[in-house]
Amino acid sequence: MTAKIARYFAERRPATPCLVVDLDVVEENFKNLRKALPDSAIYYAVKANPAPEILALLARLGSSFDTAGVAEIDMVLAAGATPDRISYGNTIKKEADIAAAYARGVRLYAFDSEAELEKIERAAPGSEVFCRILTSGNGADWPLSRKFGCDVAMAKSLLLKARDMNVEPIGASFHVGSQQRDPKQWDEALAATANLFRELEADGLTLRMVNLGGGFPTKYKKSVPTAKQYGIAITDALRRHFGNRIPETIIEPGRGMVGNAGVIQTEVVLISKKSHNKDERSWVFLDIGKFGGLAETMDEAIQYPLVVNGRQGTPKPVIIAGPTCDSADVLYEKADYRLPEDLAIGDKIEILATGAYTTTYSAVAFNGFEPLKAHYI
Amino acid sequence: MTAKIARYFAERRPATPCLVVDLDVVEENFKNLRKALPDSAIYYAVKANPAPEILALLARLGSSFDTAGVAEIDMVLAAGATPDRISYGNTIKKEADIAAAYARGVRLYAFDSEAELEKIERAAPGSEVFCRILTSGNGADWPLSRKFGCDVAMAKSLLLKARDMNVEPIGASFHVGSQQRDPKQWDEALAATANLFRELEADGLTLRMVNLGGGFPTKYKKSVPTAKQYGIAITDALRRHFGNRIPETIIEPGRGMVGNAGVIQTEVVLISKKSHNKDERSWVFLDIGKFGGLAETMDEAIQYPLVVNGRQGTPKPVIIAGPTCDSADVLYEKADYRLPEDLAIGDKIEILATGAYTTTYSAVAFNGFEPLKAHYI
Repeated sequence: MTAKIARYFAERRPATPCLVVDLDVVEENFKNLRKALPDSAIYYAVKANPAPEILALLARLGSSFDTAGVAEIDMVLAAGATPDRISYGNTIKKEADIAAAYARGVRLYAFDSEAELEKIERAAPGSEVFCRILTSGNGADWPLSRKFGCDVAMAKSLLLKARDMNVEPIGASFHVGSQQRDPKQWDEALAATANLFRELEADGLTLRMVNLGGGFPTKYKKSVPTAKQYGIAITDALRRHFGNRIPETIIEPGRGMVGNAGVIQTEVVLISKKSHNKDERSWVFLDIGKFGGLAETMDEAIQYPLVVNGRQGTPKPVIIAGPTCDSADVLYEKADYRLPEDLAIGDKIEILATGAYTTTYSAVAFNGFEPLKAHYI
Repeated sequence: MTAKIARYFAERRPATPCLVVDLDVVEENFKNLRKALPDSAIYYAVKANPAPEILALLARLGSSFDTAGVAEIDMVLAAGATPDRISYGNTIKKEADIAAAYARGVRLYAFDSEAELEKIERAAPGSEVFCRILTSGNGADWPLSRKFGCDVAMAKSLLLKARDMNVEPIGASFHVGSQQRDPKQWDEALAATANLFRELEADGLTLRMVNLGGGFPTKYKKSVPTAKQYGIAITDALRRHFGNRIPETIIEPGRGMVGNAGVIQTEVVLISKKSHNKDERSWVFLDIGKFGGLAETMDEAIQYPLVVNGRQGTPKPVIIAGPTCDSADVLYEKADYRLPEDLAIGDKIEILATGAYTTTYSAVAFNGFEPLKAHYI
């Protein structure tokens, strides 16, 4: 919680629930990432938070952008970035959307299958393409499925195929998993990538770019390494596996760029118990839940730190839930959350590190509740 | 899939993804439920689908409405229902929202805790209240947590307390779990409720209403009993436990009222494999996913039937996923889904029984994708 955000809550008293993002923190994160990996181009993962204020700031700072679709491309262009700073990083694209991106000047596309490569050739001829490789996601807090990427053998044949098509294969990408708390996880993926590069070199295809993906974390309840530590681990791994032929690299921070810049303020709607049993934990119901922006509490994956101001009572174990009539709208039941025993209905609670993956995850109008409001200061 | 919906898709060719709801099916469901439980008042659970067209139809048919908040109350009033046909059924309400509902004429409120009762007394003096009891949810496909309700002993003391306050305790409610495929599950809850009524009678408090909740299912992949079978099972249980003093009852169908009235049409964006291994299942990526309206595929809880027109190929096992850059956006991986082997990119797939819990669950703009569009015909 920055002084600027604290002042905003104190002076403006915005209606809850709402998110307040301190743009100075976003700028600081950008600069720390640039310092940690000075030779990498930064492609901000727009999906983490596409607010125009954030996009305009990052465009001004010189960031590039990783986008998931045409709507995000339009937002980035509106924020002042040129199309050569945009990557269409989604491996699942309608051909009409590729054509729309191409018409806007986008010339860098991800793929992980032959069919997608053919769509790109037809709809975005001559563009640069990179192939996403499947990785394990060990050590990441947000689950990484096998949804994206293909294995290295398939990547090799697809990149060779691309060479003979009207596209320009320039490299490979991978993702070590969102909220990746272990900087060493890039090592294994870089070993596989370097091996792929060598095999393709032997076949006469020289690649020049490695997309290191995202995964850079935000500090939630557990502590995380610094950007600098990630930089050191990744640079070491690049040297180890690529020797003196280190490729161009790009990174795609989303959570690591905006997560810790935001704070949600919520109000306690109800505190209750289910029985007269004194040992039972209290239920604390907030005016925000899984469908109002906190979707990443799914399976209690992301555990946000909570702050209660003005209460000195002993922290007691609680179950925390949202305000909707949906029984799945429980935030934390297994995780050990404690709140002051003198917490009262109407108290405000601040949910820290909520700048990423909140506003756009919010449901349109579930139970009639409005989507999460946000203020960028 | 009704002929009316099939014709709509064929003639209008709406952009995908979109939901089309046949209002005739909603009307038929309403009439079947009224016939199955002729002595129960029907309170449609607005959260399942609050489209103005559905609310207006049900208001005209004489339905009452179970609402989760003030926004839903306003939608119901706008649809032409009077406030005496509205229940504020959420047990987690801000006091300001109770006051707003009271100002609009709503006089029926749910509670499951002392603090909520006190809020209702202050903000909606003289209103009728009912206490929600915790039940197990066995046999339901959508998980029922302990979020709502209190145990019977606590319900007893809260209802006695209510008698001495400026509110009128009229009964109790429970919920056997959403998509409850076993009509016998009402029996256990009604036994507990009848026992509560007898104990309170002995203490001089006569209750007159049982809210039987929702839980009435929609046919997805597995077959479900008919409304008539639910009616018989519930009527039998009421006679068994209440004898010749059967109370007033209300039911709160949501899914059972609108689920089978809707069909989502989606387009296949990509079909791919992760390796050259021939035995591997194909991934089929649709233009709708978990964040575009299919949130109930969480943990593969709700398994929608899929229909592919114009393909005769042998059905082959597939993994089905959504179009976003989120690795959690996988719909079905464990459930045994099969699609024709000649399925191609660009094919349309119809997702049946998607009239409930889709449009409002849809994310505002995750990955820049627009919320689910819907057409009511």
